[in-house]
Amino acid sequence: MIHFKAIFKIMGGLLILLGLLMMPSLAFSYYFSSGDHFSLWVSLSVCLVPGVFLFFSFAGQEQNIRKREGYLIVALSWVFMSIFGMVPYLVSGVIENIPDAIFETVSGFTTTGATILDDIEVVPEGVLLWRSMSQWIGGLGIIVLTVAIFPLLGIGGIELFVAEAPGPTSDKLHPRISETAKRLWLVYIGLTGILMLLYYLEGMSFFDAFNHGLTTMATGGFSTRNESFAFFTNPIIHYTAIIFMFLAGTNFTLIYYGLKGKFNKVWSSDEFRAYLLTILFLTISLFIAIYTITDEGIEKTFRDTAFQVISLITTTGYVTADYTSYSNGLTIVFFMFLFFGASAGSTSGGIKFIRHLTFVNNIRLEFKRIIHPRAIIPLKINNERVTGKVIIHIINFLLLYLMIFVIGSVVMSILGYDMITSFGAVATSLGNVGPAIGLVGPMDNFAFFSPLAKLFLSFLMLLGRLELFTIIVLFSPYFWRAN
Amino acid sequence: MIHFKAIFKIMGGLLILLGLLMMPSLAFSYYFSSGDHFSLWVSLSVCLVPGVFLFFSFAGQEQNIRKREGYLIVALSWVFMSIFGMVPYLVSGVIENIPDAIFETVSGFTTTGATILDDIEVVPEGVLLWRSMSQWIGGLGIIVLTVAIFPLLGIGGIELFVAEAPGPTSDKLHPRISETAKRLWLVYIGLTGILMLLYYLEGMSFFDAFNHGLTTMATGGFSTRNESFAFFTNPIIHYTAIIFMFLAGTNFTLIYYGLKGKFNKVWSSDEFRAYLLTILFLTISLFIAIYTITDEGIEKTFRDTAFQVISLITTTGYVTADYTSYSNGLTIVFFMFLFFGASAGSTSGGIKFIRHLTFVNNIRLEFKRIIHPRAIIPLKINNERVTGKVIIHIINFLLLYLMIFVIGSVVMSILGYDMITSFGAVATSLGNVGPAIGLVGPMDNFAFFSPLAKLFLSFLMLLGRLELFTIIVLFSPYFWRAN
Repeated sequence: MIHFKAIFKIMGGLLILLGLLMMPSLAFSYYFSSGDHFSLWVSLSVCLVPGVFLFFSFAGQEQNIRKREGYLIVALSWVFMSIFGMVPYLVSGVIENIPDAIFETVSGFTTTGATILDDIEVVPEGVLLWRSMSQWIGGLGIIVLTVAIFPLLGIGGIELFVAEAPGPTSDKLHPRISETAKRLWLVYIGLTGILMLLYYLEGMSFFDAFNHGLTTMATGGFSTRNESFAFFTNPIIHYTAIIFMFLAGTNFTLIYYGLKGKFNKVWSSDEFRAYLLTILFLTISLFIAIYTITDEGIEKTFRDTAFQVISLITTTGYVTADYTSYSNGLTIVFFMFLFFGASAGSTSGGIKFIRHLTFVNNIRLEFKRIIHPRAIIPLKINNERVTGKVIIHIINFLLLYLMIFVIGSVVMSILGYDMITSFGAVATSLGNVGPAIGLVGPMDNFAFFSPLAKLFLSFLMLLGRLELFTIIVLFSPYFWRAN
Repeated sequence: MIHFKAIFKIMGGLLILLGLLMMPSLAFSYYFSSGDHFSLWVSLSVCLVPGVFLFFSFAGQEQNIRKREGYLIVALSWVFMSIFGMVPYLVSGVIENIPDAIFETVSGFTTTGATILDDIEVVPEGVLLWRSMSQWIGGLGIIVLTVAIFPLLGIGGIELFVAEAPGPTSDKLHPRISETAKRLWLVYIGLTGILMLLYYLEGMSFFDAFNHGLTTMATGGFSTRNESFAFFTNPIIHYTAIIFMFLAGTNFTLIYYGLKGKFNKVWSSDEFRAYLLTILFLTISLFIAIYTITDEGIEKTFRDTAFQVISLITTTGYVTADYTSYSNGLTIVFFMFLFFGASAGSTSGGIKFIRHLTFVNNIRLEFKRIIHPRAIIPLKINNERVTGKVIIHIINFLLLYLMIFVIGSVVMSILGYDMITSFGAVATSLGNVGPAIGLVGPMDNFAFFSPLAKLFLSFLMLLGRLELFTIIVLFSPYFWRAN
């Protein structure tokens, strides 16, 4: 038996929250007289009315949330957000059909950042802020999931690596979780505020600063400008984005420790070291490679390289330069970045370093094991032994990810797109990045895809954002069978 | 301490064998007066003289062959075969430079079948037979490896799945192994003879029948004709090839049981059922898809579909039709077949069904485990429980395979080839298939690649043929460290 009443109550709460989070858009709409306040009032009501109804109808029902409810809540939350979140686009007429609106909304809440809008700059400010806000809400949501839900569900081995995540002591939520979640939200909200201020002081308009603050910290990548970050010519703005994209891809628990001065805790994280060193290594080597090809000058080349590397690896997806314009070899390298993902416990999507690290270190030990078959050679991450079960979890996740990438690319090819575009669109959707290669390169958008392709890519974004298993398990017969 | 003397002795024996196996080419050279008998005499001597020297110098040395020697013997065997096997091409002038000769020889011994020859039909018969023979020798060699060496080394989890493979009882070779190996060779040699006869009776010339008999059973794919099997217009020849490619991709132990009438043993193999049913399913569904696109008639379309599907999945690589000419969607489907591979215990290369099966079944159970976290849900293959260790072995293999594919594609792109061609060339080399997509489609050859690219692809063929770990472990510091 699935406890649906508890689920309905939570969905009600979610809708109320969603409605309330439309208020900043309303404020901006009035401030700029952007003419979309009516659409936003409608959208707000469409969220609040059923939200209040659901929440209070089931408020008295005390039911435990167990694993099954957990999965449904996670999946339904994103589905509800996507359905109700697209109302502002449709009512305002910014987007005129449902597949497009679903794509844009899902791209928002999954912090992907791929867009079907040809001209972003004509969108009224209220709706445009809602678009950025959807990414920030998505980032907020993913923190809840990582701290509170994924450890309970045991998804993809991630449970062991979120520092300080209390983990499930029984089948119920642990009380310390709300403590941890609050701490991380504080980091998230605090950094967003600081970043908005910095962007503003560095020369962005108040509106641009507000939007880009939201979408940077969410590793989202939606911009208010058609040219994305290439629009802003002040190098300091680019460097600020580089640093904050990096932070948004860092485990927020580590940032919390960093803010408290406990740097040894930060540095002792294997994932953080891998994340930092990989980015440094890739930036420097690509900088050298690109510098020999282009003639943009040292500083500009370095800045563009660092920006693109970090933007793709953290799954943000802002662009300041066309990374597909250098050479075949460099294009495929940048394409590979779509498979990275930053850290667990951040807002970044994709595979994430902890899983790469587990795989690579385990493979290295595998060679040692081959030579010494009778020795017991355990894998250690953060100085703790990783069990075989968790290794299987993680490697399964990696393979499943690649399998979905391959099947997704086949589907896109069958829908009629060339192979490179299919690879790119699927990789960037599944990894929640944004730009890709082929016809969906850094200078393009997703408008030209057929409605079916848009819905399929939206599904892939959800799949990737919710760590695959959360969604796929719902399609498993075991899930629905009463036990 | 590595026991080099035992290794030298075995390399000597191998060279003697290689020299002796050049004799059929010599016979054909005289029979056809093809003018290459001098080159073949030279090549034969180049093998026999150092072979006899090595073998008898170290004949008296009794040394155990342990794991370390096992790895070196496997890797060095293929390296020795490739170096000495290219002599006929170079001395006869059929191939004029060393990278090309290495590519063609490695493509032979690894049973890949990719060629750098623009015009195969001008090659003198003696050398041409040697080319086909190299694939057959490669097939022979892989049977030895699978039965005798891989179980001892514990490579990629394959040890558990070769039916009747005795497995290591200690660190030494099991005496029953030579029994099993003899049985499988008998199947291999017997089927090759039958197939040659069938091809001949169905209208191939004696020479064509002899060559294609060798390269079909090796799942090699070298042809004596520029058009490959499209040259032969008799449909019966195509159907014969379809059936024997399928057999060559079947675990030879099962064929042995089949010949003894023990069909229940054949059918109880999970890998065989997956192999057979997958091929049937893919052939039928692709036949329907292709039939709606082309207008070749039912029989021809069905035959071409079955031929191409089985040729790619068994990693043979013969072609009768251009599978890249239908549509984007179908091209990517055929491209995916480069990642299949047929059965363990056959001459087929690539990943192989047993690994796919393990992964897919384990993922399905993973969902069950997610729902019932406290239940113990073991994976069973062929009604036997698969341990977590073997699952990790196999999943590691799969991921490592994909990682090498990705890194290989990046290398090829950096060498200047477009992405599709890079993906195709790397996938087909690593999977020991032959044809691919892009500039190395089914109607193309590998002549245009730079010498560096040819050497790199040759390395990938070796890596794939020797189940990755055998080669990579040699690059591991653990291997060379004395213990």
